[in-house]
Amino acid sequence: MLNFGNVLIIGTGLMGGSLAKALRQRQLVDHVSGFARRREPLEKGVALGILHSVADDLSEAIAAADIIVLGVPTLAVGQYLPIIHQHRQAHCIVTDIASVKGDVVNAVIKELGELPAWFVPGHPIAGAELSGIEASDANLYVHHKVILTPDGNTDAQALETIRQLWQAVGAHVVAMSITEHDQVLAATSHLPHALAFVLVDTLLSLPKKHDVFDFAAGGFRDFSRIASSHPVMWHDIMLANKSAILDMMASYREHFDLLEQLIKNEDSQAILDLFQRAKEARDDFTQRLNDRQKGNHEST
Amino acid sequence: MLNFGNVLIIGTGLMGGSLAKALRQRQLVDHVSGFARRREPLEKGVALGILHSVADDLSEAIAAADIIVLGVPTLAVGQYLPIIHQHRQAHCIVTDIASVKGDVVNAVIKELGELPAWFVPGHPIAGAELSGIEASDANLYVHHKVILTPDGNTDAQALETIRQLWQAVGAHVVAMSITEHDQVLAATSHLPHALAFVLVDTLLSLPKKHDVFDFAAGGFRDFSRIASSHPVMWHDIMLANKSAILDMMASYREHFDLLEQLIKNEDSQAILDLFQRAKEARDDFTQRLNDRQKGNHEST
Repeated sequence: MLNFGNVLIIGTGLMGGSLAKALRQRQLVDHVSGFARRREPLEKGVALGILHSVADDLSEAIAAADIIVLGVPTLAVGQYLPIIHQHRQAHCIVTDIASVKGDVVNAVIKELGELPAWFVPGHPIAGAELSGIEASDANLYVHHKVILTPDGNTDAQALETIRQLWQAVGAHVVAMSITEHDQVLAATSHLPHALAFVLVDTLLSLPKKHDVFDFAAGGFRDFSRIASSHPVMWHDIMLANKSAILDMMASYREHFDLLEQLIKNEDSQAILDLFQRAKEARDDFTQRLNDRQKGNHEST
Repeated sequence: MLNFGNVLIIGTGLMGGSLAKALRQRQLVDHVSGFARRREPLEKGVALGILHSVADDLSEAIAAADIIVLGVPTLAVGQYLPIIHQHRQAHCIVTDIASVKGDVVNAVIKELGELPAWFVPGHPIAGAELSGIEASDANLYVHHKVILTPDGNTDAQALETIRQLWQAVGAHVVAMSITEHDQVLAATSHLPHALAFVLVDTLLSLPKKHDVFDFAAGGFRDFSRIASSHPVMWHDIMLANKSAILDMMASYREHFDLLEQLIKNEDSQAILDLFQRAKEARDDFTQRLNDRQKGNHEST
């Protein structure tokens, strides 16, 4: 039976907390401890049965760990590498869950001179607009994809262990290049979040903002839900994946301008074609998502 | 006890069908019949217990009706006014459910020379990405707003009857001017739909579109759900509310350009402020929505 030994989670928000909870509930670890800048969420994590213990001394906790998961915001990953490098045992494997991989890998290289063989950059495509360890969900990763972005230097066994870790909590694991990851996520996650933040910001600027929000219905609710996401986390992502996000925003503007022009020209057929094309693609996406989840159920 | 007599629904899609079902289930009518271009959905409506009967002869059905609800797409409302005008009884009240009111009222005026006292323009702020009479939901309008846009010529008793009709199926009814309605809806509904269609269209244009949709997660799912909406209906809305939608798109572009510039400049504090502001507004919206629904429960 799989056992990942002693796992240390650095940064115990929703994502790190949910991984801890998933590992512990499935009896996949001997021990899972948590480290964070503030002690309060850690104590909450222990009280809620999510963590076995609070890591008071980070150096000691690193020295005791078989696997370390960095659950801190994207721009904070780099700063933990020197202390990890100094105290880790030779067999200890380190991974992260940051939403941008190029920036994280650059930060690691800046700190250590290279992407070490024992560091496996990772990104679980999951989350919610909730945050904090108290929102942890042992099934957060079930049926979700986890993307790992190893490079030529990554140890094959370390990669395999992290793959197994995520599979064991229900995720589908795939590997891709750092560049491809950051482009795909800019398109499917970072751009939609930017659009949602901008939508709410636009409505706030209208003269009768009270009325406007009063009459906002389902479409707005679904669309803007992600504007309730963690502002610091999304600030970090916008800066960390700047180049790919700006590319996607430029592409979005072209399509936005096109629709605007079609409406101005009352180009009835072209508007209908665009909406029809979008609906078919969205319906196809829903179908594939359902198929994937069905497939997962059958294979587990 | 309230009874609205003989109600005729012209255009029995999700919205018209749901109103028919809600009226019948709550025993608010003597009879509810349906008319549509195709006979098949009407027969389905009768079989499903949503409609009492199919209106085979539209003139006869109009002559028998106490209330007529036009559930047809926005651009089709006008064409039914001449036949209604010709065959309606003197006490018969007519309303519609189209998402754009300026265009509908203009079409009515074009057909009849004025907005008649017996026509109460209306718009229930409800719906789903589903369509068709088989998706009808007797509780679709519960806790939802219905906006009525009477003008100085509208008969006060007709307005009151339509207000009672919607209240009886669980809606909150408010009145506002046609212009205000079309601006508010452009901001909260039409713009978000346009953004969602454009998002899916943008992703479709990317070279690796299969990959992109494969890795799209929750944020994209929620955001783009409304891109599965009825293409013809949304095509109609874009043209019917052209001017207010173009105004909102221009305003959106300004805010979009601002965020783009902030990312380009790596203006960390301003990005954080924008996201924080949007999150607070969105959280406040969620809170007010919950309060409103709680209030409704207590008052019914």
